[in-house]
Amino acid sequence: MAGSVVRLARGGFHDECGVCAVLGHPDAANLVYLGLYALQHRGQESAGIAAFDGRELRAYKEMGHVADVFDRERLEQLSGWAAVGHVRYSTAGDSTLVNAQPVVAKTHRGQLALSHNGNLVNAIRLRHDLEQQGAIFQSTSDSEVFLHLLARSKAPTLEAALVETLDAAVGAYSLAVLCDGRLFAARDPHGFRPLVLGRLGEAWVVASETCAFDLIEARLVRQVGPGEIVELSGEEPRVLRPAAPGPHAHCVFEHVYFARPDSEVFGENVGMARERMGGQLAREHPARADVVVAVPDSGVPAALGFSRESGIPFVLGLVRNHYVGRTFIEPRQSIRHFGVKIKLNPVRSVVEGKRVVLVDDSIVRGTTSRKIVMMLKAAGASEVHLRICSPPTVGPCFYGIDTPERRELIASAKSVEEIRAYVGADSLGYLSEAGMLSCLTSPSESFCTACFSLDYRVLDQEHAEVIEKHKR
Amino acid sequence: MAGSVVRLARGGFHDECGVCAVLGHPDAANLVYLGLYALQHRGQESAGIAAFDGRELRAYKEMGHVADVFDRERLEQLSGWAAVGHVRYSTAGDSTLVNAQPVVAKTHRGQLALSHNGNLVNAIRLRHDLEQQGAIFQSTSDSEVFLHLLARSKAPTLEAALVETLDAAVGAYSLAVLCDGRLFAARDPHGFRPLVLGRLGEAWVVASETCAFDLIEARLVRQVGPGEIVELSGEEPRVLRPAAPGPHAHCVFEHVYFARPDSEVFGENVGMARERMGGQLAREHPARADVVVAVPDSGVPAALGFSRESGIPFVLGLVRNHYVGRTFIEPRQSIRHFGVKIKLNPVRSVVEGKRVVLVDDSIVRGTTSRKIVMMLKAAGASEVHLRICSPPTVGPCFYGIDTPERRELIASAKSVEEIRAYVGADSLGYLSEAGMLSCLTSPSESFCTACFSLDYRVLDQEHAEVIEKHKR
Amino acid sequence: MAGSVVRLARGGFHDECGVCAVLGHPDAANLVYLGLYALQHRGQESAGIAAFDGRELRAYKEMGHVADVFDRERLEQLSGWAAVGHVRYSTAGDSTLVNAQPVVAKTHRGQLALSHNGNLVNAIRLRHDLEQQGAIFQSTSDSEVFLHLLARSKAPTLEAALVETLDAAVGAYSLAVLCDGRLFAARDPHGFRPLVLGRLGEAWVVASETCAFDLIEARLVRQVGPGEIVELSGEEPRVLRPAAPGPHAHCVFEHVYFARPDSEVFGENVGMARERMGGQLAREHPARADVVVAVPDSGVPAALGFSRESGIPFVLGLVRNHYVGRTFIEPRQSIRHFGVKIKLNPVRSVVEGKRVVLVDDSIVRGTTSRKIVMMLKAAGASEVHLRICSPPTVGPCFYGIDTPERRELIASAKSVEEIRAYVGADSLGYLSEAGMLSCLTSPSESFCTACFSLDYRVLDQEHAEVIEKHKR
Amino acid sequence: MAGSVVRLARGGFHDECGVCAVLGHPDAANLVYLGLYALQHRGQESAGIAAFDGRELRAYKEMGHVADVFDRERLEQLSGWAAVGHVRYSTAGDSTLVNAQPVVAKTHRGQLALSHNGNLVNAIRLRHDLEQQGAIFQSTSDSEVFLHLLARSKAPTLEAALVETLDAAVGAYSLAVLCDGRLFAARDPHGFRPLVLGRLGEAWVVASETCAFDLIEARLVRQVGPGEIVELSGEEPRVLRPAAPGPHAHCVFEHVYFARPDSEVFGENVGMARERMGGQLAREHPARADVVVAVPDSGVPAALGFSRESGIPFVLGLVRNHYVGRTFIEPRQSIRHFGVKIKLNPVRSVVEGKRVVLVDDSIVRGTTSRKIVMMLKAAGASEVHLRICSPPTVGPCFYGIDTPERRELIASAKSVEEIRAYVGADSLGYLSEAGMLSCLTSPSESFCTACFSLDYRVLDQEHAEVIEKHKR
Repeated sequence: MAGSVVRLARGGFHDECGVCAVLGHPDAANLVYLGLYALQHRGQESAGIAAFDGRELRAYKEMGHVADVFDRERLEQLSGWAAVGHVRYSTAGDSTLVNAQPVVAKTHRGQLALSHNGNLVNAIRLRHDLEQQGAIFQSTSDSEVFLHLLARSKAPTLEAALVETLDAAVGAYSLAVLCDGRLFAARDPHGFRPLVLGRLGEAWVVASETCAFDLIEARLVRQVGPGEIVELSGEEPRVLRPAAPGPHAHCVFEHVYFARPDSEVFGENVGMARERMGGQLAREHPARADVVVAVPDSGVPAALGFSRESGIPFVLGLVRNHYVGRTFIEPRQSIRHFGVKIKLNPVRSVVEGKRVVLVDDSIVRGTTSRKIVMMLKAAGASEVHLRICSPPTVGPCFYGIDTPERRELIASAKSVEEIRAYVGADSLGYLSEAGMLSCLTSPSESFCTACFSLDYRVLDQEHAEVIEKHKR
Repeated sequence: MAGSVVRLARGGFHDECGVCAVLGHPDAANLVYLGLYALQHRGQESAGIAAFDGRELRAYKEMGHVADVFDRERLEQLSGWAAVGHVRYSTAGDSTLVNAQPVVAKTHRGQLALSHNGNLVNAIRLRHDLEQQGAIFQSTSDSEVFLHLLARSKAPTLEAALVETLDAAVGAYSLAVLCDGRLFAARDPHGFRPLVLGRLGEAWVVASETCAFDLIEARLVRQVGPGEIVELSGEEPRVLRPAAPGPHAHCVFEHVYFARPDSEVFGENVGMARERMGGQLAREHPARADVVVAVPDSGVPAALGFSRESGIPFVLGLVRNHYVGRTFIEPRQSIRHFGVKIKLNPVRSVVEGKRVVLVDDSIVRGTTSRKIVMMLKAAGASEVHLRICSPPTVGPCFYGIDTPERRELIASAKSVEEIRAYVGADSLGYLSEAGMLSCLTSPSESFCTACFSLDYRVLDQEHAEVIEKHKR
Repeated sequence: MAGSVVRLARGGFHDECGVCAVLGHPDAANLVYLGLYALQHRGQESAGIAAFDGRELRAYKEMGHVADVFDRERLEQLSGWAAVGHVRYSTAGDSTLVNAQPVVAKTHRGQLALSHNGNLVNAIRLRHDLEQQGAIFQSTSDSEVFLHLLARSKAPTLEAALVETLDAAVGAYSLAVLCDGRLFAARDPHGFRPLVLGRLGEAWVVASETCAFDLIEARLVRQVGPGEIVELSGEEPRVLRPAAPGPHAHCVFEHVYFARPDSEVFGENVGMARERMGGQLAREHPARADVVVAVPDSGVPAALGFSRESGIPFVLGLVRNHYVGRTFIEPRQSIRHFGVKIKLNPVRSVVEGKRVVLVDDSIVRGTTSRKIVMMLKAAGASEVHLRICSPPTVGPCFYGIDTPERRELIASAKSVEEIRAYVGADSLGYLSEAGMLSCLTSPSESFCTACFSLDYRVLDQEHAEVIEKHKR
Repeated sequence: MAGSVVRLARGGFHDECGVCAVLGHPDAANLVYLGLYALQHRGQESAGIAAFDGRELRAYKEMGHVADVFDRERLEQLSGWAAVGHVRYSTAGDSTLVNAQPVVAKTHRGQLALSHNGNLVNAIRLRHDLEQQGAIFQSTSDSEVFLHLLARSKAPTLEAALVETLDAAVGAYSLAVLCDGRLFAARDPHGFRPLVLGRLGEAWVVASETCAFDLIEARLVRQVGPGEIVELSGEEPRVLRPAAPGPHAHCVFEHVYFARPDSEVFGENVGMARERMGGQLAREHPARADVVVAVPDSGVPAALGFSRESGIPFVLGLVRNHYVGRTFIEPRQSIRHFGVKIKLNPVRSVVEGKRVVLVDDSIVRGTTSRKIVMMLKAAGASEVHLRICSPPTVGPCFYGIDTPERRELIASAKSVEEIRAYVGADSLGYLSEAGMLSCLTSPSESFCTACFSLDYRVLDQEHAEVIEKHKR
């Protein structure tokens, strides 16, 4: 036995999906492929594209990264002027190819492909009802429910059937739907997940984040409004269901961690919002220290903001290995903090004898933070002051983010002081919820902060009871 | 046709090899695998490990990254307490498996495995002589020459044969040699490439850079001296050939670009040297600007140094996609600056209307710099002042770095002003050679700066003539 | 260009499926795997197994041969005491993984896996009705229709739903159905395709042919009767629908070509039936000749029968290459009769100067026969008398065999003399339908001979019209 | 655990190589590929082709069957008008890619590729001497010795070096050598292994057996004579070393088992020789029986001969599965005679109650024969009379056949009666050596029968001593 295989820990919160679609371009699948590639951070488990050429809908899905799943031959097979794609992250139990998206089917409404980012809170109930009526499910994903509702709807037109279907769905959904060459984009009335519309010449483009537009040189037109269902065909989006009035519930974690710093999400740039949060963090939890060190790469913008506000210099005290694969073979005689060490290396010359402010975006289980603090101290840091650029995460997400169960969230059971002691930091400060929201342009009430506040805006009966129990 | 495949341009200088070896540890191959993984930046084309268990030498080599080449099964087959490994980068023509290392052979001296970083300047001559004597070569790599010299040496002992062999080799070599369970480390008298010795408990470790030690928790003992040949077995390295007196010729490009910022190379930390160079660059070529933007990731330390010295804030104006694969399928209707865009995205909100100082480590052909400048301007930057943290690169490397031919180096034919005009920057400043060397701890004369100065310390007759012609 | 790829022509009739299932054995999937391996001749395009362990149904399907699709790891994942498997051959248009079997689904009746050999004549109509009701189809195969009918049936019990479902299906079906750990075997009322029941200790086994039982050492109990639906659980099969009264319509082509010579099919041994047919062929179409040569391997039993009856010695005049892969790269300068030559080589020493009786089971398009006759003459045969051990094939099969279209069947348009001239034989004799049936134990009226006689016993309206047109 | 993997037993004698080469055809590699495919029975472990286009020699070798190793892309890369290929079988210990052929090297004589069928008896000695002189061996195969001898020869011309090299080699070799576009064919003075010359238009072809010529439509010119070395270029082979006078030592096992029945080997057809041997066997060991059954496929010609001579009808009592893969997963509860059963199935209807003459080509370890006899009895055979179409095999082969060690050969330790008892047959008869040789056209003294007679014509000192000990 040469050692044990270490699957790199995914201890944090993970987004479940990225969506991209193109209508009206001869290279539709190729553009969607590039869009997905720009959205790869939203899901690394599977990737898929369905394309339509006016006659036939062809799809290819596989476990793996976009760049590995698709090669030239496969893209060439996905010919046509319309395409819809998806990248997916999922929990272990369900990470099978059958759950990969877009979900595709032949129905009496025609050939259908659908990409979904989000989670329905009434999925189990809908699914049970459909099965009782004889529906056959291929997957365990929420997203297949949409297909069956559409196939069974008695509504006279596809548009009506789509509105009827989405009216039945409760929870979070940002969708791109391709049906017989017509492209629809839709978002749930709370607007949990982002979804933007753009144009590339005459073609329409839909994506989860604007970074997908940047790569393919599409122009941002506007967000799909919360609750809005639009068909994309002519010069203007044709509205099938109008946007819902607020207050909305945009996921604040997109700004804290998920979205790429170069994206505009919910109307503002993510990286700059993170920098402002880092500045606010420095005001709320200043530290006497010599250097500011970020946990790369997600902690960098906040660390720069902290450094600027505090005047403490930002240094490269942790270096990230950019060639990290999926699994590593650990030697029998175990290395301390192996999983973290394979990704991050503290730089002794930089931190030795220094008081370090360590900035990260969030703490989930606490194990990774603990390892990083230990590593910095082993590399000679005299003090480590941990600063977290969001409030303590105390609750799971039911709206499309793959989170650990509540009891695995360290902040759900431990006080800040207990967490500080556990991770071994000399001090620990979390950004306040009010502070965090004050750094964003949209009004505070338009964000969902349920993972920090347990204030879940939409819940199925069953979930609600669980949450109530936790609050008590 | 869905588009053309874009193999991501590797327009710059590329290191040719990383070396790692372990003696005296039951998990030798597993540790070498991790060491190579930390050295992956030194060569991404092939990876290989040979291991010895006291009876048999087993080797596995394949094209690809370390994490893809080796899985648990393969590492388990490489059982034994001694192992030597290699990662390789090479030019297109020779990138075949047969050139992958370690080179391995059965000779009358026993079973031999050898990993080499560097290039011999007299390789063609040595090879020709050996072939005339009946030697059969399997590869086109320099490194096989060592094997044949060792196999043919009439010297009475392995040690003597090794000294005789290395005395015949002229040029750059940092070597780890495993022969029947004995491990040797050696470096050419000029010390072109780095090589360090470390210990992990009772075991000996050899590696190109200290970052390999950090990951496996080995302790740095010292560098292998230029010209030194040592056998590693007891408590102290046994010196077969002593270190050569200076002046040496350490590759300054290791500090400029190649080595990882967390490594100690030629006795000092790389990242901190880069930061000092960035500061010196700010002194030599100040700029009136609003923000400092790095070309990630290699330009980041220099940009931080520039920012600190100049007081101009460092911002994340270019975001790097961390999921870049090897090739990408470009749509038929080409995207401007596709190759760069797939890796880097300018952040409009950050640079719009700003005067930007753009910091990079070097300019090779100029094409990438030009694309980045264009992208920043398209994203709204009002001015772009390009600052390069090394002198103009005017000559190829004969000592182990894969460089374009001289005529492809933009600085070999164009003046600084011409380069500025070509890349479209508003101003351009290169760090001076003296300024660069002043930021390093070792004396200036101990570095090879041939790619900047054409001052080649060691040349075969043939190379020398070519260079002379260029100088005129 | 090194040449063109020759996909080995599959010019003849091809069976579409083999079915195997096991209930009540701890190694169920492993036994099914071996059973499928023995049934590999019934379908080489895809293979699949679904297994149930009392809690979960797991399935694995892939394009390719049984031995390539399954390895130890995959079989181990298919744990459980019940399993159902399938091998499939299909026409080019539909040869996609999505059509591979067993078809599997989660329904409100539980987890279902179904393997089907045969074709429904009312599949398109059933499918259309189901789609109108909102059913979502994943594949283009008939077999998925069964799943939807089962899922939608309002019948109170699974048994009743199964009977209702099969009552709605018209055409050919031999089925193994696994539902929540209960195993059912069923056959259409005409008994087109074979299906046998066996026992291995306490376990029940179902298979298309008895050769599957031989390999796993199961004991043949009896055939599933035409029209019968049985549940296998206790000591005796529990009959849900009794066998239908005759006359039945057993596919005579199973005896002519499809089934393995070591199988018992429709109650008698296949190889011996073929030998008797060969004898009958010698009586109907004697030949003045020196040697009898078989087209290996399917023509061998008939050739032996012919030789025995005629007294003309059987010789190995055509040698088959047993290492034939799926495709071959033909050189640019084409070889005559390449596709056949890669499989068969005439032996000059054996046939030179000889009058040869060449025995084959059937002629479909005539192209292969022509090539073989040519090859034998080129190898020196002075005369070639072609004897075919079945009547001229004039019609397609609608009951589960993949046949060319009618116009591609040489005998549908040409007289025997025209065929003889086309293939270049000195004489040509086909076995008569009456002669063929006289060699079988069951009464003549119990066989379907539609491909020879155009006497289709079961047809959907649409098919019937096509056939009528042909007859005129 | 789903069961254990059964690697199909290769209990018998196995040929070690097939050789094929083409000179002077634009599709050289493609033709060699087809030739190798026809020679696949001579070695299934690895396949390789080297091709030369006037400038460069390119080679591709891989473990596996010819049809799997080469696809169109690979053949296209092997462009040129000259090519040499090889299929290899080897014992487990050495079955690594490094031993695959053709062996290829760059030497001062130019680029060399060599394919070898046979074994040298002085290989170890030659190898040791070469290693002492500094030669580096890549493989453990005999064939690499030729390369080093050629590379080191001081002879002034390539021809002279080739003669010098082959004069130094003792044992069995049939060779095709390609050196800088010149093709040589050579055979050892005893002519152990076959080698034939042919023409395809203007091109020259070399192959181990004539069946390779049949497929590519080349015309047999003549055998390469024992001891002959020829260069193929003009209209006639240019003889570098003339054929050696007899008596020669042609391997009689080529006729008994190895060669394909459609090949001409040592000047006569293999299948017909086997049939004659079967007739002779019937005369030497008649049996009172009802049917003759062959062990397919190698026993078929002899069984036909036995049947014809004895008048006992030949029947298909054992059916072979033509879809046998390399390994099979056996269920935990083992099946009797699994390894044999997966390949062969006895037909109960054919053998039940019958006295069976079972004809096979040879018995090596006896385990397979025992299983087949058992299976036939279990299927109802009342008596099984085993007839072997060669003498008892008592010694290993040193001339190119992979044989078990002497102590594993059942006939080296047991009498015929003991073997009969072990395999469970009712009677056992072996063909006599004289009888076997009487069926062949060439004089008896021109065959090597060492594996039957221990009369080794060529031995190195070391081998000789081992054999002497055995004889005593």
